[in-house]
Amino acid sequence: MKKNNAYIGVDIGGTNLRASLVDGKGGILKSLRTPVRIDLGPDRAFEKLLAQCRELVEAAGEFGLKAGGVGLGVAGKIDPAAGTVVFSPNLPALNGFPLGRELGEKLGIPVVMENDANAFGLGESWAGAARDLDNWVGITLGTGTGGCLFLGGKLWEGAGLGFCAEIGHMIILPDGPPCGCGSRGCLESFASASALMRGAREICPAGGSYADVLRGLTERNELSAASIYSAARSGDAASKKLFETMGWALGIGLSNIFSLLGIDRAVIGGGVSSAWDAFIGPLRASLEKSASMFDAQRAVVVRGSLGDDAAQIGAARLAESSVG
Amino acid sequence: MKKNNAYIGVDIGGTNLRASLVDGKGGILKSLRTPVRIDLGPDRAFEKLLAQCRELVEAAGEFGLKAGGVGLGVAGKIDPAAGTVVFSPNLPALNGFPLGRELGEKLGIPVVMENDANAFGLGESWAGAARDLDNWVGITLGTGTGGCLFLGGKLWEGAGLGFCAEIGHMIILPDGPPCGCGSRGCLESFASASALMRGAREICPAGGSYADVLRGLTERNELSAASIYSAARSGDAASKKLFETMGWALGIGLSNIFSLLGIDRAVIGGGVSSAWDAFIGPLRASLEKSASMFDAQRAVVVRGSLGDDAAQIGAARLAESSVG
Repeated sequence: MKKNNAYIGVDIGGTNLRASLVDGKGGILKSLRTPVRIDLGPDRAFEKLLAQCRELVEAAGEFGLKAGGVGLGVAGKIDPAAGTVVFSPNLPALNGFPLGRELGEKLGIPVVMENDANAFGLGESWAGAARDLDNWVGITLGTGTGGCLFLGGKLWEGAGLGFCAEIGHMIILPDGPPCGCGSRGCLESFASASALMRGAREICPAGGSYADVLRGLTERNELSAASIYSAARSGDAASKKLFETMGWALGIGLSNIFSLLGIDRAVIGGGVSSAWDAFIGPLRASLEKSASMFDAQRAVVVRGSLGDDAAQIGAARLAESSVG
Repeated sequence: MKKNNAYIGVDIGGTNLRASLVDGKGGILKSLRTPVRIDLGPDRAFEKLLAQCRELVEAAGEFGLKAGGVGLGVAGKIDPAAGTVVFSPNLPALNGFPLGRELGEKLGIPVVMENDANAFGLGESWAGAARDLDNWVGITLGTGTGGCLFLGGKLWEGAGLGFCAEIGHMIILPDGPPCGCGSRGCLESFASASALMRGAREICPAGGSYADVLRGLTERNELSAASIYSAARSGDAASKKLFETMGWALGIGLSNIFSLLGIDRAVIGGGVSSAWDAFIGPLRASLEKSASMFDAQRAVVVRGSLGDDAAQIGAARLAESSVG
């Protein structure tokens, strides 16, 4: 019967709720997106999630398929067994919310959960840039910096301590810039949208035309990683420098991960990976400078190939492999 | 028949050749030690190794046992399949030497090889401080800084690229002190006998009574990690500082490893771990300061319990599990 099944993959981020109906090979049959508006409370967000899932269950029928289960990729720490969100920095209203359990009860089909970085990895591994890789590290560059590890062909989930692949909180520069986690000099403090925004705000006081542009955006609350990338592409040296620093930090982080794990493959995704050309050169130079135990020339660092869909496809994969 | 077997474990270091006859539970029945004197050439070293193994094969008979195989733990990069030493910084004369293969032919029993840091880990895991651990990192503080990883109860050997668990070459401080590997600011440049010796030589020009002592030792070619530890214990502030820096770097390194792998257990061995009381306090303080994604209070960092015997016992374990 499995051949007739499709799976629903949901990516619950700080801004948007994205859900897709995915076929048994990782292809998207139908996609839905709506603002999560968590400020209106977890119950409203849950209603939106439920409505999306019901629409996709129905859509499966239209394709002559049956939705076999739902996978939820959530930005934050989740308890897969209990089906609850333990702690989500960007979705604090969901903390402790039994999202998976309630959804399963309402829909009457199995619901499984993962954090969004692992969902990204499962997606790229199933149908994306990591399809042929057994041992690799994934990095997601978004508001924060997430990660996942695949070892021996499987997602590595750590020793069951409730944290794993926290690549964003590996320290790159002791006593470096403050990080949202409370520590300093973490990868996230160099390689995330937050890091770019902090850097851009620091540029403003220096004056100059781009400083004026960035200050204007900041004042209108419109500053984003994308606007800083535009400034860099337009030739603004200070904005370019922010992406160079991002690449420098990613190169050191990857070198450390490769040396430790005896691997040399990485896939980078997340919204900020759209600025690929602004940081990949500095990343490769930094990786080469840092590498001593592995051949940096043979190391492969690529961009995820599923874009914004990776976590949804990965969440569907999780449902597929859990439910069968 | 396995019950009647014993195994020979050999630790081939830069200075000494140590070999033990080990019973089926990791207990040492007989130990031999002799200077390796690699300066006299690989053939002489091989003769010594062969003599040691023959003596232990005979000893097994005296215990009413049969030596079922030999495990070699070698400081350097080895090719287990070919039975050769690929590259050993401290035993350069052995580079390319078919140590395992020739020994197996002469003895007529199976010979298996591992690098010494993995052998350390196999020993501590079998009969030492890591006996009850499934997920942990091992660090050996010797001339250099070695490491091993155990994930899901098994030694993790990487993606088969010829390097793994190169913890000593994870970068702690970008553009920090030069490391033997050619890079800068690696863990090894802070946390090894080499790092202590370099640090002590830098203290000398400053003058003062301990500087005089350290300079005297340097001039007589007698400076060692042990003499610097003595100076620290006698209250020399500059020597103490070297161990504090070692602990600081180890704390950051462990925090990065724990965050990445979702683990919180470490076992530290190697000769320099004898200076435990001089660096463990700074290590714990640094780990606590660096930790954001895991609970540093629950993290456990302990000293290996097998001392100098760990790699021999681990090499014997390797023989035991390969040969059966």
